Order: sequence, then C-alpha cells, then structure tokens
Amino acid sequence: MSGSILGKNFQISTWGESHGSALGVVIDGCPAGLDLCEEDIQKDLNLRKPGSNKFGTSRKESDAVHILSGVFEGKTTGTPISLVVYNENQKSSDYTNIKNIFRPSHADYTFQSKYGFRDYRGGGRSSGRETLSRVAAGAVAKKILSEIGIEFLTYSKEIAGFSTNKTPKTRDEIFSDQLYMPDSEVSLKAAEYLKKCVEDHDSAGGIVECIIKGVPVGIGETVFDKLDSALAKAIFSLGAVKGFEIGTGFASAKLKGSQNNDQFINNSGRISKKTNNSGGILGGMSDGSDIIFRAAFKPTPSIFKKQTTVDINGNETEIEIKGRHDPIIVPRAVIVVEAMAAITLTDLLFSNMFSKIDSVKNFYKPL
Amino acid sequence: MSGSILGKNFQISTWGESHGSALGVVIDGCPAGLDLCEEDIQKDLNLRKPGSNKFGTSRKESDAVHILSGVFEGKTTGTPISLVVYNENQKSSDYTNIKNIFRPSHADYTFQSKYGFRDYRGGGRSSGRETLSRVAAGAVAKKILSEIGIEFLTYSKEIAGFSTNKTPKTRDEIFSDQLYMPDSEVSLKAAEYLKKCVEDHDSAGGIVECIIKGVPVGIGETVFDKLDSALAKAIFSLGAVKGFEIGTGFASAKLKGSQNNDQFINNSGRISKKTNNSGGILGGMSDGSDIIFRAAFKPTPSIFKKQTTVDINGNETEIEIKGRHDPIIVPRAVIVVEAMAAITLTDLLFSNMFSKIDSVKNFYKPL
Amino acid sequence: MSGSILGKNFQISTWGESHGSALGVVIDGCPAGLDLCEEDIQKDLNLRKPGSNKFGTSRKESDAVHILSGVFEGKTTGTPISLVVYNENQKSSDYTNIKNIFRPSHADYTFQSKYGFRDYRGGGRSSGRETLSRVAAGAVAKKILSEIGIEFLTYSKEIAGFSTNKTPKTRDEIFSDQLYMPDSEVSLKAAEYLKKCVEDHDSAGGIVECIIKGVPVGIGETVFDKLDSALAKAIFSLGAVKGFEIGTGFASAKLKGSQNNDQFINNSGRISKKTNNSGGILGGMSDGSDIIFRAAFKPTPSIFKKQTTVDINGNETEIEIKGRHDPIIVPRAVIVVEAMAAITLTDLLFSNMFSKIDSVKNFYKPL
Amino acid sequence: MSGSILGKNFQISTWGESHGSALGVVIDGCPAGLDLCEEDIQKDLNLRKPGSNKFGTSRKESDAVHILSGVFEGKTTGTPISLVVYNENQKSSDYTNIKNIFRPSHADYTFQSKYGFRDYRGGGRSSGRETLSRVAAGAVAKKILSEIGIEFLTYSKEIAGFSTNKTPKTRDEIFSDQLYMPDSEVSLKAAEYLKKCVEDHDSAGGIVECIIKGVPVGIGETVFDKLDSALAKAIFSLGAVKGFEIGTGFASAKLKGSQNNDQFINNSGRISKKTNNSGGILGGMSDGSDIIFRAAFKPTPSIFKKQTTVDINGNETEIEIKGRHDPIIVPRAVIVVEAMAAITLTDLLFSNMFSKIDSVKNFYKPL
Repeated sequence: MSGSILGKNFQISTWGESHGSALGVVIDGCPAGLDLCEEDIQKDLNLRKPGSNKFGTSRKESDAVHILSGVFEGKTTGTPISLVVYNENQKSSDYTNIKNIFRPSHADYTFQSKYGFRDYRGGGRSSGRETLSRVAAGAVAKKILSEIGIEFLTYSKEIAGFSTNKTPKTRDEIFSDQLYMPDSEVSLKAAEYLKKCVEDHDSAGGIVECIIKGVPVGIGETVFDKLDSALAKAIFSLGAVKGFEIGTGFASAKLKGSQNNDQFINNSGRISKKTNNSGGILGGMSDGSDIIFRAAFKPTPSIFKKQTTVDINGNETEIEIKGRHDPIIVPRAVIVVEAMAAITLTDLLFSNMFSKIDSVKNFYKPL
Repeated sequence: MSGSILGKNFQISTWGESHGSALGVVIDGCPAGLDLCEEDIQKDLNLRKPGSNKFGTSRKESDAVHILSGVFEGKTTGTPISLVVYNENQKSSDYTNIKNIFRPSHADYTFQSKYGFRDYRGGGRSSGRETLSRVAAGAVAKKILSEIGIEFLTYSKEIAGFSTNKTPKTRDEIFSDQLYMPDSEVSLKAAEYLKKCVEDHDSAGGIVECIIKGVPVGIGETVFDKLDSALAKAIFSLGAVKGFEIGTGFASAKLKGSQNNDQFINNSGRISKKTNNSGGILGGMSDGSDIIFRAAFKPTPSIFKKQTTVDINGNETEIEIKGRHDPIIVPRAVIVVEAMAAITLTDLLFSNMFSKIDSVKNFYKPL
Repeated sequence: MSGSILGKNFQISTWGESHGSALGVVIDGCPAGLDLCEEDIQKDLNLRKPGSNKFGTSRKESDAVHILSGVFEGKTTGTPISLVVYNENQKSSDYTNIKNIFRPSHADYTFQSKYGFRDYRGGGRSSGRETLSRVAAGAVAKKILSEIGIEFLTYSKEIAGFSTNKTPKTRDEIFSDQLYMPDSEVSLKAAEYLKKCVEDHDSAGGIVECIIKGVPVGIGETVFDKLDSALAKAIFSLGAVKGFEIGTGFASAKLKGSQNNDQFINNSGRISKKTNNSGGILGGMSDGSDIIFRAAFKPTPSIFKKQTTVDINGNETEIEIKGRHDPIIVPRAVIVVEAMAAITLTDLLFSNMFSKIDSVKNFYKPL
Repeated sequence: MSGSILGKNFQISTWGESHGSALGVVIDGCPAGLDLCEEDIQKDLNLRKPGSNKFGTSRKESDAVHILSGVFEGKTTGTPISLVVYNENQKSSDYTNIKNIFRPSHADYTFQSKYGFRDYRGGGRSSGRETLSRVAAGAVAKKILSEIGIEFLTYSKEIAGFSTNKTPKTRDEIFSDQLYMPDSEVSLKAAEYLKKCVEDHDSAGGIVECIIKGVPVGIGETVFDKLDSALAKAIFSLGAVKGFEIGTGFASAKLKGSQNNDQFINNSGRISKKTNNSGGILGGMSDGSDIIFRAAFKPTPSIFKKQTTVDINGNETEIEIKGRHDPIIVPRAVIVVEAMAAITLTDLLFSNMFSKIDSVKNFYKPL
C-alpha cells in the first residue's frame, strides 16, 4: 500500500530515512493566506533535535528546514507546502555490523520479512528520525489552530516511573526544564536515575500528557472519525507508543457511572462541565473542555547491554548495539506528540465546517 | 464530512439509528468466492444482542440480519455486501422527557452543538446499538481471516475492578460464561457486584482483552498505517472506550529497556520471541507472535440515579434517566471489539499483498 | 479493493444487483438540517424508471424508495442516509440460457475473469439498474445544491446521430419530451429511427449534455481534484459512456488560441467572459459561467440479433439475447448524468469552504 | 481540501510552483525490490523538457532529478520515494506586469477568487511545469508495469488539425519525430503550420493517443473505480485537456449496436475480440485487448497577440503576454499523458490482487 500519508482534508505525506540524504513532508490542504516562514517550523524542530537535552543521542544535526513550495511573499498559497531537512551527520558505518542481525524490539525483523530487504542504516524509515517530518507538519498545523485560539501544553508526565501531578500553565514552564517536565523536583530525580541508566547501558520509558485548550465544541465526526479515534491513530503511529488514554482513561474502568459522569453546569452563561473525566470529548466530538490525553512510551530498545537475538538466517547470536542512542526518548517525543495532535485536530476542524446546511448556505451567499 | 466509512481496501459503510427503522452496513471489498450465509453473521449478532446476558438492557430485539446483495448461490461475488437489521422494539416515548435535556457523559450536548438538531430517541446515531453494524461486518472479516488460519480470543478481562489473570484457550471458555469472562470465580464476584450496582441505580466499566492468533509476519504499514495505529483507531471509535494498550502497554513505561526488550530465538527453525512485551507488533507490523491488546470501557453513562445537568437552553436542571439500559456494557462489547480488530486486520492484510515487486510479478505471470 | 464508494466529504456507497432483492445507497456527509422526504428522491427515480419512455425496457418496477436512516422529523440529521429500493419484477429465468456464454460488449467476460465467478442474472452488479442508487443519491445532492441556487439542465443532445442545437431553458422543456430532448422536431425523427431500430433488433447510442447554472467561482481543487477531472471520473463511471468533453471539447483541439481563448469582460460590475469555450472551468475551478459538458453513450450492447461469441470455456458459439432491454438508454441516462454531476459538485463544494485561512477564522469566531 | 494527492494504493503527492525553488513528488506505495536509478526517471523528464522540441518554450532547464529517499543500494525499499527537481532558470520579472491582470483562459482569475491571493509568477502551481512531477512518478510506475510486460505507445495523433491514421509500432517511431508523431508526412505539414502560427503570435491544440499493450484481463473495479473512469480522471487533471474518449469514443454514439459490439473469438486458445471498439475495457475492467484512449488538448492560452481582459479590480484592459511559451504543448504532453495512464494502471493493478478469496489464500499459505 503506502502508509506514509495521513489525513483527509489536511493531508501530510512524509518521506525520508535516518541515513538517507534528506527527510521531509508535503502538506496538502493548508488554507491560503496564513503567514508562514521557516522560523515558525524551526523552533519546533529545535525542541526535538538530537542534543536538545543531555539524555538524547549525541548525533549532531542542525535540522535546518527549507520551505520549497506553497509559500509566496510570506503567505501560504493554498497549494502543497514542501518542507525538507537535509541529513548532515550520517555515520552509516556504525551499522554495518548489524546489517545481518535483528535488534530486539526493533523493526528489523518485521521490515526484512515484509519487504524481503531493508535499509539497515539506523533503522532506515523506522528510525525515530522519521518524526522530524511530523514535527515540521505539526508546526504548520499549530499555526493554523492558533489563529482560532487553540493552544497546546504537552509535557513529560512520567519518566522512568517518576511521575508529576503538576499541570503546567505555560509552555515556558515545560520547555525550560531539561526533561520538559514542569516539576523541577521530580525532574531532578528522574535525571539522576537516567544518569545511572546510561552508566548501566540501559534505557527507560515514560508518559507524555497533552492538554489542548480552546477547542470549539463539535470537532470530530460521529462514528469512525471521532476526535479521540483519530488522536489514538495519530499517537499510536509513533513507533514507541504502547498505550493511549483520554481523560480518566484506564482508571475510569474501575469507577461507577455516578463517579465518572461529568455533570453539566451553567458557567456564567456558558454550558460547561463540573469535572472532566471525559477528557474533553463526548461521543467523539470535542465538548468545550480541555482535551487531555496521555501516551505511554516503552523504553528505548537500543541499549548497549549485550543481548541475545537471531541473525537474518535464523541463527541465534549475540548483539551489542553501538552508535548514538537516547536512553530516554520521552522529552524529545513531547513535541512529536503535540505535532500529531495538532495535525489531527486541524483535519477534523475543516470537516466540521459543513456539518450544517445553514453553514453551507451562509458561506455561499448568493453571488 | 461523513465519518461512518472505515477502511481503504476492505471498506465498511455503516448507517442507522437506535430508534429508526433499521440499521445496516455495506461492505465493499470482500473478495469473491467466499462462502457466506446469514447464519455466519447471525451467530455473532446474537452474542451482542440485548438480553444476551442478564446484565444487559431489557430491550427485546431479534436482531435478525438480512443479506441484500453481494452474495450469489452461497458465495460472495466481489461486489458490495449489504446487510440490514430491522428495528422491532423501539419505544421512542421513553425519550420524550429528555428531548430538551443533555444527559451527562452522553453525546447529546455535542450532537446538538455540532448539528444544531438531534435525534434524541435513544441517542440516535450515538447509541451503542450502532455497533450492531460493526459486528455484522466483523463476522464477514473473520470469515475471510479464518481462511488463512487467523483466530480470535476476545474476553472480559476486568469488570467493575474484578480482574482475571486467566487466559482463555477456546472461544467456548469465554462465551459459556455469563459475563464472557473465562474465569468463573472472578466472574461470579463481578456478577454479584453488578447485581448490587443495579439495585443502587448505578453502572460499572471494565476492560476487554483481544488475542489474535496466526497472523502472518509483516501485516501493517510502516508509518501512519501501522497495525497498532489502525487498531487503536478502530477500537477508540467505540463510544465508551477511554484507553487502549498493546502488549505490556502502560506498564512498559516503567520498565528498563533490558526488561522490556523481547529477545529473538530460534524456535525449531522458526524465528520467534522469548517474551511478548511487544504484543505481537514491531515497528507497526505483526511479528508472528500473538497480537494482544486491551481496551478500557468507562461505566455506562445511563444511570437511574438523579443527576444534575443543563437543558438545551443552558438552564441547570435535574435528570432521572428511564428506559432500558445496561449497567455494564463490557460483556456485549467483547464481540464488538473483536469485530473491529477483524475489520482492521483484513484491510491491512490486503495491502500487504503488493509490498514486494516479486509478489506482483508472481501474481501477474505472463499471459 | 472495492470501488463502489465515491467522494471524499460527500461520500456515497452504492450496492445491489439487477436481480437481487434490493438496491440502495448510503450517503455519508449530508449536512444536518436539510428538508428531505422520499418524494424528493422518488421524482428523480421516476425519470429513469423502466418504462419512463416507450423506448425503454418493458421490465415493470415501481422503484419505490425508502429512507431507512439519517432523517428525523423531516430533516437530515448529519448522519448517514440509507436509501433502499426493493426489486419486484426479477425474471432471472430469462438469463439461465446465457449463464455460460459471454454477451458481446458486456462485462460478462471481464467479471468472470476477475472474480472467477459471476451473478449472470441481468448482468448482476454491472447492470444499468445499478444507476438507480446514483440517481437516489443525486437527488439528495441536488437538494443541497439548490439551497445555494445551483440548477441543472440535462438533456438528450443527440440520439442515434440525430442532434439538436437547441439549448433548453427549463427542465419542463426537457422532460415533457418523450426522449428528453428539448426539440420536438429532431426528437420525432429520432423516435422514428428508434422504432425501426427495434424492428431490426438493433440498438442506438447518443450524447447527453449537462448545463449547470449558478455555480460560485472557485469550486474544484488545483491539481488532481479539479472540477473537470472529478466530473470526468464520475461520468465515465457509467458503463456505457465512451467519451466526455467539456466546453468546446474535442473541437477546441482544432482551434487557434486566439479563437479558443475566452476574453474576460466586466458585465455590470461582475467579472464575466465574452464566450464560454472553457465550459465554465478554468484551471480546474469553476469560473462563474455555466458549466457545460457532454457524455457520449455507446449503443446498448444487448441486441436481439444473432451474434457470434464464445462460451465460458472459450468455445466459439452463437448467442441470441432475449429479455427486456432498452434499444437506447440515452433518455433514461439523462437523470443519471445529472445525478453524477450533482454528487461530484457537492463534494467539491464542501472542500472549497476552507481554502482561505480567513474563512476558517470567520467560521470559528472566538467562543 | 488539498487535491495534489492521487491514488489509493500507489499514491503520489506532487508539489512545486513554476517559479519556486523546486518541484517534486513523493511516491508512496512502490513495492520493494524494484531496480531504480535516477536515469530511469531522467529519460522521461528529458522528453517533456523545455526545448525538447523546437516548438516548445525557450526556457532553459536541465530538469535534473534527484532521488532523496526510498531507494537503497539501487533498489526500492517499499518506503516513500521522494523525487526533486530544482528550478534553475526562473525569470519571475517577466510576470510583474501581469501581476494584477487576468490572462484569458488561464487560471489566474479562478485562483485569485478561490484563494484571495496568488503566486502570479508563471502561473505558480497552475503552470504546465507542474506536470514534471507527474512524469517523474510515471517513470516509476512504468518501471513496475514493465516487470509484468505492460508497454506504452503514446503519440501526437493530431496537431492543429493535422491528423495521422498511422499507428506506431515502436517508441522509437514516435520519439524520433520532432512532434512525437509517427508519420513524418503529416508531422512536416503540422510543423510548417506551427511555424506560421508562431509568426502570427498564435497557438494551436491537438490530440494525444495512448495505446497500452499487455494489460492482464480484469484490471479496474466495477462501479466508481472503473479503469476508464480512473483514466478519465487522471487525464482530465491535466490543465489543457478538454476531451477524453476511449476506443471508438464519441463516434460510437452514432453507431448501431450491431456495428459497435465486439464479437468474442477464440484466438488460438485464447479468448479475444474480433474488433476493439471497446478500447480494451468492458464494464470498467481491462478485457485483454490493447487499451486505447485519446485526449484533446486546447490551444495554448498564452499567445503574444494583444487580448482584451480585466484586471484584479474588474476594470477592462488589454494584455500582451510576454515571456517563453509553447505555441503547442501537445508533443511535450505525450509523455505526461503516458505518465498519468501508468500511475492509474499501477494503482488498479494492486487492488486487483485480492479480488478472489483464492488469491488471498494462495498468498498467505500456512506458515
């Protein structure tokens, strides 16, 4: 098939391998007239850049983005926006020793089986570096959403089991922390643990939480294209994600209806909810409260410890992964999760515009 | 937009309201030559039928399915299969008193806001009765999958906090239990609790686990159409689902890489894994192990307790829901979860068939 | 794959065979709040009904449409509209003699080759009766379009080589003629010819022209989803269509640029064109002039003359088709062409609503 | 919406403006293991390159293609193939004088109306230069198709009214001619006419015919995704196309059924047809004969003659187009038409692979 294209009305088409010449994305469906420059995108890419925190890979990349189309005189034209980042620091030689070996919990084996052949350099297309294209597209989506007052607060909620209960109020609270966790106390403990983790040649996982503010009521379609359904798909398309929940999530399975139901109230003339167990979505549509979801990331599979595995011929063998790997990807994943949420929301934002015949009539007033 | 169509190559288009004249589904993309009769579908519909367990709604429906197209002389023809179930026991009058009131944690408010208007009878399109169409389509998908040896074991893993650690070996172990839980000890405790729950005019939630056996290696596409991504979307499109995880899921976020990584082994000549934390999916593609995922269901929002809410004009008021409602939907949801997984897997099964140029050449041998 | 679903935001999913129990369509994406009743659809179905003109098949069908979902209290709800027509007068026995023979210029051979099996009764899914679902969906699309002042004039421009140069001004001019040709003189000659054609056990083809008035400027997307591109697809999806042209069409290939170019003028303050060689579309987008296209229909392949052909085993043989067939399908195709144009236009009408960031901002004004 | 993405299983996503920094395409869905290098693509790009014939624009571009992803060690990997061509010779200054004027029969007016804003340099996205991306993708599609023996003969059938009845037997016959017309006699007359046309500051149109050989029986889906329907869409997505016909096309509308029907015969054990009025497609599926279609191109709208038009404010004015324009685009369009046909056919080739349950079972033989 394909599988690198996402969305219906706001469509992104991503491409590129970890150790190829470049990675990029084509965004088809961005409305015309939006102010857009490379810096709008670069600032998000910088948040996921290798070396953006000290627990990330030591690979050095400037990750400089170029806009190749779709923008004219500083504004989007309504035609496809092509964004590209050239790779600079590929050390493919790091990988020749694992060319014929399947790294545990990586996609080597499945890639080889499906395609009969694989780009073994840094995981090729299955590398986390692929998310760069998503972040670039997400920056454009967030630019659109910010035009109607939608804002994101996405952060590391849990790292290696160290969890915070503090909810951030500003983006600065998040991104000023080395682990993008708005709680310096917990963050310091996590950092200490991670330091030991690196010494042990091991890795860790964690949880990212995303809060979306200002979403109008009614975004999302009623059956298969529910907002939560679309978010689940988008977030689960990240290689290391193993769990997704919205609002009270898994915990709601243990509650009674009388505990979990959110009572509607009249909040100074505006319909609102007393609690937000729903995570801002009812029946697949945004309900006007904050949208809140969490994604669980498994620990990085690339560890320097010796592991047992098989080679391409099925012979059992041992492997010691070398190269440049993150012992924890969660902080760098924060901006990726945010990007996927923004892309998803933008797509459904458009399709909501013709839900009522009156909206259609109002748009196409008589010539 | 739309939102009631799912899939790319195996597409289903569902329709129907809780209290309309009928519900149904059109399946477009079923291969020709498959044996198919109404009983193949009816047996699954019976497992989700109102009254299929004593904790379900008391609404009486035979839910008899009719095949209106796509089958000729007992075999599918390759053209769309239209399935319909006529509603028999609509008591719309139950709902006139809530016509202008928003039930807490239901889709009434979001529906009304999005469309400016709603079918208030039993939730209309947002009713759980909508899943009937999914089960019907799922039965066809499972028929296709069974042709290549793929089988499902889906069951209630947790009900109202009562959780089992027993893994079923047969479908009979599951469906012989009143709560579709393959553990009579835990099931009895849960049933006792539910009885009290009904007396208290309250409701409960739970967790469904799905195990898929016999999936060939390589099903799923590499970036946005990953198998886990597609499953997450499909499962989260069920109204009451608030969490989804695969393999070790959320728990893996607390593990070290060395604990979570699944070592590859040679199992009598076949590449296999020592553990299955991955839940049978690596890099978005099936890895040959059992696929295992879990879905968390919130407690049924329809409870008979008095609740505070607002009416259509935003005035605060009280509501006492009447009618026929399940205090727990988890048992009936088992077959729905299975259906969604089967539909998703079938779709990706087809798209895997042209992953290699050699497969294409082999299929189209010279005339 | 599938192939019976059309559209992106206004999606139709059709089903049903000529001699099955019913045919129908599910419309997903109709905005909420549109007045809709069965009569709105029935009046178009009546225009394509067998026996709607004396040169059609003698098959007797009432073609009564039923709305099974998506409409509540006389208005669309925004959820899928399921429409069904039950077959009444299937004479499948007419076809047993051709069960193993391929009718020339029919889809018997290709169907059998592709699927290894076919519903031979009246062509099954490849029957012209399949267009019933399209007409039903088209009636809904036209209802939407009429809300913003878009109207259709579709008619038989040429029948069996008898061509009119008269352009209709009203629908009544068209549908009051027995061949749906707004030119009684030419129509009578064509009718006389057709009478002879029937006597000769032969058949005829023709050309349908469609004029769409009141389309706002800018409908259609710039590259692959151009309005003309989408119309071409929609019209060519009709089995008997062998040619499609827009505006001056094939004749423009012989003109000079200076002859073919349409000069823009200021028509009482409104930008307009002096001529309309473009057929109302420039660069894939509606240009504010009438949209004008033509579709060429081949002669009905079912003729009663003896023909040579092969059987299912490749043996050469003779065939004499019996049963009830139209010697000309063009008049009945008029409403089908119109339906396809309306469905296509509606889909693109919606996607145009978020072409500009200002439109998005205007729609989602601050809460 | 979007509109620059085409296909379902073989998807192309094109981008780029005439006077931007680059143009390109992302191909998602190319099977793994196909030999592919830049020269495979370059040779087709050279056939449409400015200056590839003396009646083309004088703009000088090397149109050198770069493969940025999806190919590893000379073979496709199954992941997206990103192709880019950098613009070298943009003379945007040619266009500042028409910044505020709508060129007749161009997309200036519709673009401006739809997006409220436009890249006026050379038509931006609506430039013929956009087809470069299509040709690049088409070269990859043809590489796939050639693996199963499908070959193309596409040529100028008519230029400025000068038409040939000769059918080419080899690609060399076509591309050795300066107008890509396999008939030097007619080609010379046409060339002479074009020379005069240039002197008159005028332009001409023509017809391209495409013949596809070796297509297996059964490609194409039965209702909306018919092979002819998909081809019509693909070809009509070219800006200058105003007509499309298959087989006998418009002429068949004047024939009797007994004249137009193609009799099946047994050709040395293989089912074949005595004639090919169908153009190789029956019921939307390939019938094993050559696929033959024609596209009518309007004369180039850019002429150097003075024309009347309006400016952006609706004021009537005159325009004299300057710059570098083809007086005839038909020869350069030949390879573009071929590309679109190849892309379309490849997409439908894949979806045919799971038409029968037996094909699915055969592919997924027990592990």
